[in-house]
Formats: sequence, C-alpha cells, structure tokens
Amino acid sequence: MSKQELPVLDLAAACCTPMTREPLGEADAAELSRMFKALSDPVRLRLLSLIASHEGGEACVCDLTGPFDVSQPTISHHLKVLREAGLVGSERRGTWVYYWVLPVALNRLSTLLQAPVSTATRT
Amino acid sequence: MSKQELPVLDLAAACCTPMTREPLGEADAAELSRMFKALSDPVRLRLLSLIASHEGGEACVCDLTGPFDVSQPTISHHLKVLREAGLVGSERRGTWVYYWVLPVALNRLSTLLQAPVSTATRT
Repeated sequence: MSKQELPVLDLAAACCTPMTREPLGEADAAELSRMFKALSDPVRLRLLSLIASHEGGEACVCDLTGPFDVSQPTISHHLKVLREAGLVGSERRGTWVYYWVLPVALNRLSTLLQAPVSTATRT
Repeated sequence: MSKQELPVLDLAAACCTPMTREPLGEADAAELSRMFKALSDPVRLRLLSLIASHEGGEACVCDLTGPFDVSQPTISHHLKVLREAGLVGSERRGTWVYYWVLPVALNRLSTLLQAPVSTATRT
C-alpha cells in the first residue's frame, strides 16, 4: 500500500462518541472490548507502540523482534491478534511483512476514553 | 468527595505521550496493559460508560445493576476490577456506594492512543 499524505480528516468526530456523552450499547461494547483485549498484553502494547512510532509510520517484522525476549512465533502471534482486532494493517513485500497502525481504529478508542470535563480535577 | 468545578487542566499534556511519538517502555506497558485489561470485558466497558455519562459525573451502584442481565455480585466484581485498575473512584454514602471515573487515568489512555497524523488517510 502506498502511503498517502492527504489532509488529516477529523477522524474523532467521524467515528465515535466519548463515553462521557452517552453510555455504550451492547454491540459497540462487545466490539470495543475485543479491541481493548488486544491491548491488554504488555508485549502487544509495546509492539503496537513500536509500529506506531516507527519512522515512516510502518515497521517491518524484522524491526519488531529485537526488542523482545520472546520467540519469533510469539511475536507473530501477537501481531496476528493486533491485526484481527483491526488495530494494524499488514502487507508482505518480498521477504518481509510490513505493519502500520490503523488510525481510525486508534482514534475510535482514543475518543471513547476522552475524560469528562466537569470532573477533570479528580485524580 | 465534594465535586469541584475548577478550570480544566491540560491533563493529556501532563500525563503521557502518544505512542506514535515514542515506543512504550516495559514498565509503562505493564501498567497500561492492566488498565486495558479492565476494559476488555463488554460488561465492564458498559459499566464504565454508564458511570462516565451519568448526570453529575457519578453513579450510585443502585443505578448500575438495572441495565445488565447479570447478578449483583457480578456487577460488584466488575466495579472492583475497574477500581483496582485505577479507572474509577468510589465512596460509600449511607446505604449506597457511589462511583466516578478518574479523568487522569482515562486521559492517559486516550492520549496514548491518539492516531498518527501522517497516516490518517489509512483506515
């Protein structure tokens, strides 16, 4: 997939509502909880952050194994979970598979969790 | 706890960094993955959204059992998980326990997941 440098969309407004505004319905909660489950493992969370922060916005699987003290098959499993949760996209190019984060999915979660304004002084 | 209506702090800037800016360290990933694990259950996610969206920013446990087809002890267990993950605060007042979301925690997760700008056209 070629990377497009187009104007940034207002993804947050387009995709979702903060939970401070209205309670989640059952279907949304089921879908979103699956995405959060993918983030509930520390290795997966670090993998996602490595992909998200990688130069150019995508990372080769060859960039993602070094920092971890787990086997290559374990890394591959975690990447599959992230992909199946809709948090990353991937594409094989030659020898390697490349991964990038899917911003609409991340923004949906980010917007959902925006904190309430009127209780912002509570910690 | 009395509710304070003070100016909103720039919580996002104060608490955390988007994962698009830098990869997570091991300690942060471990802590954050525990918070995401608390969000990985659909009933807990709906409970959190009911608390977050409740009038006045807090909800009595008596407001939180009606919408669910699960037992009161199960609701209490889920609320305990949310509290132990640092996502909600609670206080007993007379007969009932009241819950409110902890905005610094929510904002930390929300900011972490802010989507990358340069890949915003990817879905």
